[in-house]
Amino acid sequence: MIIAVIGNSSCSPEETELAETVGELLAQRGATIVCGGLGGVMEAACRGAKSKGGLTVGILPGQDSSMANPCVDIPVVTGIGEARNVAVMKSAQAVIAIGGSYGTLSEIAYALKSGIPVVGLNTWRLSRNGRQDNSIIRVRTAAEAVKKAVSLAKRRQNREIAAPRQAGARNDKKDKVLH
Amino acid sequence: MIIAVIGNSSCSPEETELAETVGELLAQRGATIVCGGLGGVMEAACRGAKSKGGLTVGILPGQDSSMANPCVDIPVVTGIGEARNVAVMKSAQAVIAIGGSYGTLSEIAYALKSGIPVVGLNTWRLSRNGRQDNSIIRVRTAAEAVKKAVSLAKRRQNREIAAPRQAGARNDKKDKVLH
Amino acid sequence: MIIAVIGNSSCSPEETELAETVGELLAQRGATIVCGGLGGVMEAACRGAKSKGGLTVGILPGQDSSMANPCVDIPVVTGIGEARNVAVMKSAQAVIAIGGSYGTLSEIAYALKSGIPVVGLNTWRLSRNGRQDNSIIRVRTAAEAVKKAVSLAKRRQNREIAAPRQAGARNDKKDKVLH
Amino acid sequence: MIIAVIGNSSCSPEETELAETVGELLAQRGATIVCGGLGGVMEAACRGAKSKGGLTVGILPGQDSSMANPCVDIPVVTGIGEARNVAVMKSAQAVIAIGGSYGTLSEIAYALKSGIPVVGLNTWRLSRNGRQDNSIIRVRTAAEAVKKAVSLAKRRQNREIAAPRQAGARNDKKDKVLH
Repeated sequence: MIIAVIGNSSCSPEETELAETVGELLAQRGATIVCGGLGGVMEAACRGAKSKGGLTVGILPGQDSSMANPCVDIPVVTGIGEARNVAVMKSAQAVIAIGGSYGTLSEIAYALKSGIPVVGLNTWRLSRNGRQDNSIIRVRTAAEAVKKAVSLAKRRQNREIAAPRQAGARNDKKDKVLH
Repeated sequence: MIIAVIGNSSCSPEETELAETVGELLAQRGATIVCGGLGGVMEAACRGAKSKGGLTVGILPGQDSSMANPCVDIPVVTGIGEARNVAVMKSAQAVIAIGGSYGTLSEIAYALKSGIPVVGLNTWRLSRNGRQDNSIIRVRTAAEAVKKAVSLAKRRQNREIAAPRQAGARNDKKDKVLH
Repeated sequence: MIIAVIGNSSCSPEETELAETVGELLAQRGATIVCGGLGGVMEAACRGAKSKGGLTVGILPGQDSSMANPCVDIPVVTGIGEARNVAVMKSAQAVIAIGGSYGTLSEIAYALKSGIPVVGLNTWRLSRNGRQDNSIIRVRTAAEAVKKAVSLAKRRQNREIAAPRQAGARNDKKDKVLH
Repeated sequence: MIIAVIGNSSCSPEETELAETVGELLAQRGATIVCGGLGGVMEAACRGAKSKGGLTVGILPGQDSSMANPCVDIPVVTGIGEARNVAVMKSAQAVIAIGGSYGTLSEIAYALKSGIPVVGLNTWRLSRNGRQDNSIIRVRTAAEAVKKAVSLAKRRQNREIAAPRQAGARNDKKDKVLH
């Protein structure tokens, strides 16, 4: 199971603590963490995961791995700048957003567009046409965030495993791939 | 001057009319329109611009130009899917958002992150930590949207022209470019 | 008709002259030029095109338009670095390669993979398994390059116009688009 | 240490065997394998690595992980199509190319442009201006390929570790990162 943890590259002490605990709990549940690979929330989540023996993937915006935080096991160097936010989202079965600024908002938007569940801790609130958009699943603690994200990721994994059994499903999926 | 018009690929009659008028007014002000190149708001804005002799650029997500709406003069075929949303934003000096769903939200987020002004017509509202984020400049009519966007784009252009005269500015800019 | 002109951002006087003539002749044939937007071959081709009233599009790798050469009419700011080479190729109906280093080689490879014809002036030669790959159409003069590229682009355009008339073709195309 | 293995998604029995042996030997040397995540050479290399307990990363072009070969441990879903070839290269300290068609050629070009060493088994030969380009290090066996790639990757890693100690180097590196 791969869970994305997203948030600012500079963050408050409270967010750092939340992210570190999220990382610890995800590792204990056996989840691989994917993130943007930089500092702040991303680094805290990776540090937490490493302290519990977890595996961490950092999908980096730049041209080499020099900006990867020291707790990234696998630096993926995309060279595509902020467009890498799409890859951080699509690589995960569920997302935990902690705080966050506009970069995090773009990631949340991409996840929701792709139907990838987003669990939020003190993060963006969205509304349009005077109605609140409740797609982000709001929780209050790191433990709740991890429990919810893991459960949603499992449900998503099961759907993905089940899908190819349906007639035609395999072909539909192939059409979506570019190469 | 290049202004982005963003919104859903399927939209209401009201949004279609708004987008078409925005396209007309931008063309009359001499602005080139950049958009995601597909239907809905994008097509209506391009159609409006073409009716007044404007130039339209469609930055497409797919592998060829077959999905470009018929009012796109210059189809840019990126092949990078939704990651092309970054390019739609960075290519503009100002953005007009009309309605919109999660794809539009990702574009708004990218624009605000890059400091590109966003003018909104019936589009997303954002808040975090209980406080509303007022970065999107809200207007009520197509005319207001165009007036505001053109004025902000001019200010931005002037800053860009002025910047290289400042000591060191040219070098700073060069550092940002990859090639 | 959109023709890509590709080559090094720093080039010899002979390549500069070739590229400028290619730009002039393409503009006279009514073709829009798409290129990587930087200096060298790209700038010379744009300068040639502008001297004959042509339209030029520069698909830039960086974060803003400051590196665009002064003869680019429409700077497309991708923010995705060298990955923008894909977009330069896919946006063209044919490609003219003049000299070139590894960046140009990546573009040639992408074009050939996508079935976009490549006309070469003093550019790369490829072979594998001891056999030469003759996919690059070699010519000796700017005039030959333009004549060949325009003719191949027209053939490609006609195929694209014809394709949707075939049963199912429209749906196949739609499947390739991401949004 | 991360080594990329590149080649066609459909390949000959000889290439399959070469790729599988390369995967086995890389895993035995403790290297993580990065590849494009699909079939053919990519799958064979991953299968070889898994048979020796190695770790495999597949950087996929499509919109979900359904096209990942079954021996990919960590599917990175980029959503950016062939532009993901840049990420496969930049994520590696050295590259082993086995056979390959135009996609592989684009990857070789990107690696050489970025100064990432490429070791080739029956792959492309390049020349320009009548002179052969010998940047691809040619070898004849899987064992030679792995030995050479590991040694070059180590040299590259050492340079990267040494670099930040130099005055100013850290800042230079930061400038290269986009976010």
